[in-house]
Amino acid sequence: MTSDGLQLRSLIKSSGELELSLLRVPVPAPGADDVVVRIEASPINPSDLGLLLGTADMRTAKLSGTKDAPVLTAGIPPNLLRPMTARLDQSLPVGNEGAGTVIQAGDASRALTGKTVAIVGGGMYAQYRTIKAADCLVLPADATAADGASCFVNPLTALGMVATMRAEGHTALVHTAAASNLGQMLNRICLKDGVALVNIVRNAEQAGILRAIGATHICDSSAPDFFDALTRALTTSGATIAFDAIGGGKLASQILTAMEAAANANAKSYSRYGSTVHKQVYIYGGLDTGPTELNRGYGMAWSVGGWLLTPFLIKIGATEGNKLRARVVAELKTTFASHYTKTISLREMLEPAIIAAYNKRATGEKYLVNPSL
Amino acid sequence: MTSDGLQLRSLIKSSGELELSLLRVPVPAPGADDVVVRIEASPINPSDLGLLLGTADMRTAKLSGTKDAPVLTAGIPPNLLRPMTARLDQSLPVGNEGAGTVIQAGDASRALTGKTVAIVGGGMYAQYRTIKAADCLVLPADATAADGASCFVNPLTALGMVATMRAEGHTALVHTAAASNLGQMLNRICLKDGVALVNIVRNAEQAGILRAIGATHICDSSAPDFFDALTRALTTSGATIAFDAIGGGKLASQILTAMEAAANANAKSYSRYGSTVHKQVYIYGGLDTGPTELNRGYGMAWSVGGWLLTPFLIKIGATEGNKLRARVVAELKTTFASHYTKTISLREMLEPAIIAAYNKRATGEKYLVNPSL
Repeated sequence: MTSDGLQLRSLIKSSGELELSLLRVPVPAPGADDVVVRIEASPINPSDLGLLLGTADMRTAKLSGTKDAPVLTAGIPPNLLRPMTARLDQSLPVGNEGAGTVIQAGDASRALTGKTVAIVGGGMYAQYRTIKAADCLVLPADATAADGASCFVNPLTALGMVATMRAEGHTALVHTAAASNLGQMLNRICLKDGVALVNIVRNAEQAGILRAIGATHICDSSAPDFFDALTRALTTSGATIAFDAIGGGKLASQILTAMEAAANANAKSYSRYGSTVHKQVYIYGGLDTGPTELNRGYGMAWSVGGWLLTPFLIKIGATEGNKLRARVVAELKTTFASHYTKTISLREMLEPAIIAAYNKRATGEKYLVNPSL
Repeated sequence: MTSDGLQLRSLIKSSGELELSLLRVPVPAPGADDVVVRIEASPINPSDLGLLLGTADMRTAKLSGTKDAPVLTAGIPPNLLRPMTARLDQSLPVGNEGAGTVIQAGDASRALTGKTVAIVGGGMYAQYRTIKAADCLVLPADATAADGASCFVNPLTALGMVATMRAEGHTALVHTAAASNLGQMLNRICLKDGVALVNIVRNAEQAGILRAIGATHICDSSAPDFFDALTRALTTSGATIAFDAIGGGKLASQILTAMEAAANANAKSYSRYGSTVHKQVYIYGGLDTGPTELNRGYGMAWSVGGWLLTPFLIKIGATEGNKLRARVVAELKTTFASHYTKTISLREMLEPAIIAAYNKRATGEKYLVNPSL
């Protein structure tokens, strides 16, 4: 019986300080429908970094405490404390998803004992996690925990984008920060499913990554002919919906402008309110935390809004959601394969130099945590 | 038989010049299902000004031509010519809506002869307009053309806002530039229908206009406590959808921020992605033509987009649309009454001093054109 284990906690104090620590916490005994998973692999996704580090200035990070109980502190600039109001002085577990071995099971869940499973639901940067058996995705026999660590967030987000595109009546889509792990996955889905995908990247190196995996439309926003190239790609593909990981700046507005230019390319008469083709940008990330600037030079048939995986899954319901999960398991080592720059331990998660590396949010780089190390 | 009549035309030349003129054009003879209306009243709505004046700098306006054939010209700043590309060198009739007397009718439309009708569909800044009888809204016997001149754009827009609010699952709404003719109409609808309306105005005088007609929630964006007052009004009313006539600047983002604060006022635990309450801002005007700046500090459940009357009417279909029109006629002199600052002739529409007056887009001021003068 496992009675306790280490768990990473993130605390933002109202005094304006971030504190990361490793707590030894009791492992809840499994109820009849529960299992205890020993976490062996959990990715650090961009969506984890927000909860983990908040708005702290990580250049001020300092490690203290002991080897067994390390504590990392960092200052929060006073003007960035307000967005943290709702979480002040609460010690929060972190880590969206992970995978590992079922080491204990309730009476109704015995069949899972010893299986390698993928799980989601927070608190994965921990040695053990008690969770409902029904929430476990059993991995194929030849899959390791590392293979299944990123089963949920990226695969379901990428599948969710294509499903949202279809549900809202579009036939092709645009993706920004397109050379990311998620972006590469989205390319594999679209190539397999025959969906046209316009990839927007920020430099020539990222364009090369996508060319190498067979992407069709690649537009480099740092190139002088970016807008014309984007308009051509949108005219050819007919994409009228975009998923944007950048958020801030003018990119969302440029995409809408180019969609409007593509829609008007074949227009026959003057429409004073612009084209009637609905143009949609969903912002699902915030690599640029600055304001989004919309010039509205694209008629009246446009929308910009937030997009998030969980509400999408609630909207489509359990049956459709399970179909998506089954596809992820079936194509785990092909379409949905993730690649990691490095595997680190829970303790290493608190080391300033390593934080600087995984917090770079560099396209194509991703860190994996193994809490059992 | 009326064979021809004056019609106002707006032309933007690729050389960078706006030209307004009065052309004598043939009046198309009515087919069996048509009527010819002598236009006696047509409002100058903000939505007409865009087509009428384009992006011309009206400080450069010059009147020439003859009394019978006046011509107004004005320069277009080179950087503002590009948005006009789609309409260059096309002589366009102007005027969304109007009312007047049926002076000729096709065989199937005789019953309308002599009736005062309201019509919509462009080209109303003209002495005569041939139109389908089915598109005429017959006014009550005691209504003048001036009473019915603004039957469509403002009344259906205001009703469309309330209908959109209901259709998208909201229970109260926000309106900006709220002391406008449209805004006052929306207040009368909401007071009558028992819908909570949060009015955002830009100064104390406008607040006074709304207080005088019984508006409940009035927030003055020029007041130092604007944000707190708005948050209180949103908390009380529960409004999660806004219709914004301003467009540019930070107001849309402030509204979303205040909606989020209102939604979180009663939240019980920290939600890392913000509240799950969907917050919507529809931009339907552009009093501020600058970019819309969104700081995205309101979680992920938000959307900002364009809203336009015509697609709304297409979406709800003819049956629902006719119900709205019938309500406008039934409440023409109460809920949907419009007030005009001044009535002018077609010729006066081309006089620089008068253009300066009706182009001010001052809240609560509205000009009426009587092409029969």
